[in-house]
Amino acid sequence: MAAPFEYQVLDLTDDEVAAEAAVFGALTDAVRRLNEATLRTTVDHDTVEQVRQQVEELTARLEKSMIPGSFGVSFTKGGRVRSYGNAVVGLRNPLAVPLKIVQDKEAGRASAEFELNALYEGPPGQVHGGVVALVLDQVFGEAAAAGGTPGMTGTLKLRYQLNTPLGACSAAAWVDRRDGVKTIVKGELRRADGTVTVTAEGIFILPRWAREQLAEPGGTPPQYE
Amino acid sequence: MAAPFEYQVLDLTDDEVAAEAAVFGALTDAVRRLNEATLRTTVDHDTVEQVRQQVEELTARLEKSMIPGSFGVSFTKGGRVRSYGNAVVGLRNPLAVPLKIVQDKEAGRASAEFELNALYEGPPGQVHGGVVALVLDQVFGEAAAAGGTPGMTGTLKLRYQLNTPLGACSAAAWVDRRDGVKTIVKGELRRADGTVTVTAEGIFILPRWAREQLAEPGGTPPQYE
Repeated sequence: MAAPFEYQVLDLTDDEVAAEAAVFGALTDAVRRLNEATLRTTVDHDTVEQVRQQVEELTARLEKSMIPGSFGVSFTKGGRVRSYGNAVVGLRNPLAVPLKIVQDKEAGRASAEFELNALYEGPPGQVHGGVVALVLDQVFGEAAAAGGTPGMTGTLKLRYQLNTPLGACSAAAWVDRRDGVKTIVKGELRRADGTVTVTAEGIFILPRWAREQLAEPGGTPPQYE
Repeated sequence: MAAPFEYQVLDLTDDEVAAEAAVFGALTDAVRRLNEATLRTTVDHDTVEQVRQQVEELTARLEKSMIPGSFGVSFTKGGRVRSYGNAVVGLRNPLAVPLKIVQDKEAGRASAEFELNALYEGPPGQVHGGVVALVLDQVFGEAAAAGGTPGMTGTLKLRYQLNTPLGACSAAAWVDRRDGVKTIVKGELRRADGTVTVTAEGIFILPRWAREQLAEPGGTPPQYE
């Protein structure tokens, strides 16, 4: 059974990858700040109209040459994996927080500290419940991978115990146990004062195509960056 | 027990609200397109640098006057509720898809049809599992509200059955049953060909402050737009 999607192999050295990451990462960070200003601005309508026109001009410049479809996941020749388009961690995705997830392979654990600003709001002043799920899904997947058993989300169950105010947050997840191709991961979200606000449990399943790939000589689970 | 957060009442007529929505909505749409171009562009590094500088200038213009903190939820004098900042449906939030959710109050049901582009990617070419959760949490909450029992997410359990390719999707949720202050909602995500890819069940809980507000003469659940 083949992978249901293609991974791209890029003809770039690690230095070229670093140079590209610096330039495109800086643009993405700038666009993240524009996103927040777009939401929060109270300037007059004429100014908004002028800014809109200029945003459209800049978009047209970038659109002159684009990858077809989505960014996908690519490997460099050095074997490094780039998931720059990822909605949670993607270096080149302006929607991504972005989360910088730390993996602890010995403990089968992943964690991240991050800020959620006004763009991630649900109830007034609070993190959107769905954003909590979005962030935890990614951290859970990376905990399963850290534990040596990467997988796709099979189930995810979230229990919202307290509100999570916008601002500083942290998330952690760890492999609780394994059952055949299933890796059971548990984890939580904490607000700035360290109080756990949401707990969750997920089952991650290693797809058959990935099991075959791992069984090949030298086959190792991909390490995302 | 007071609401844990403040709702803002705006001194605007419905016409003024419509004019404001048109101007700021157009800017937000333009920034959404810039987000996608930022992710997918392959123009040269010099062009990226020039675009970044201009994005920073536009951001500075918008930042000259901003609401403090997050957008929150506001009521107009006409009693309409605006959740423009919401991470899934917000008219002024460039991260929001945005979902246009249709509520069916008689059936206690909510649904939406929408496109998820490259910005919402997890596995190559596929919708991020956490984005599925983000979208469903919002649709589920609006189903509970459509059924007359709005609430905050208590639990949300998702079962990922098949991949969801990027592109056209639809989501639906309905009130399954009620148990005291709990509203049990069920729902699903479908990909373009109509196949259900993810099913979910959630419990939505009416907070005590909202129960007290609803019990007041003329108290009605808020209708979001």
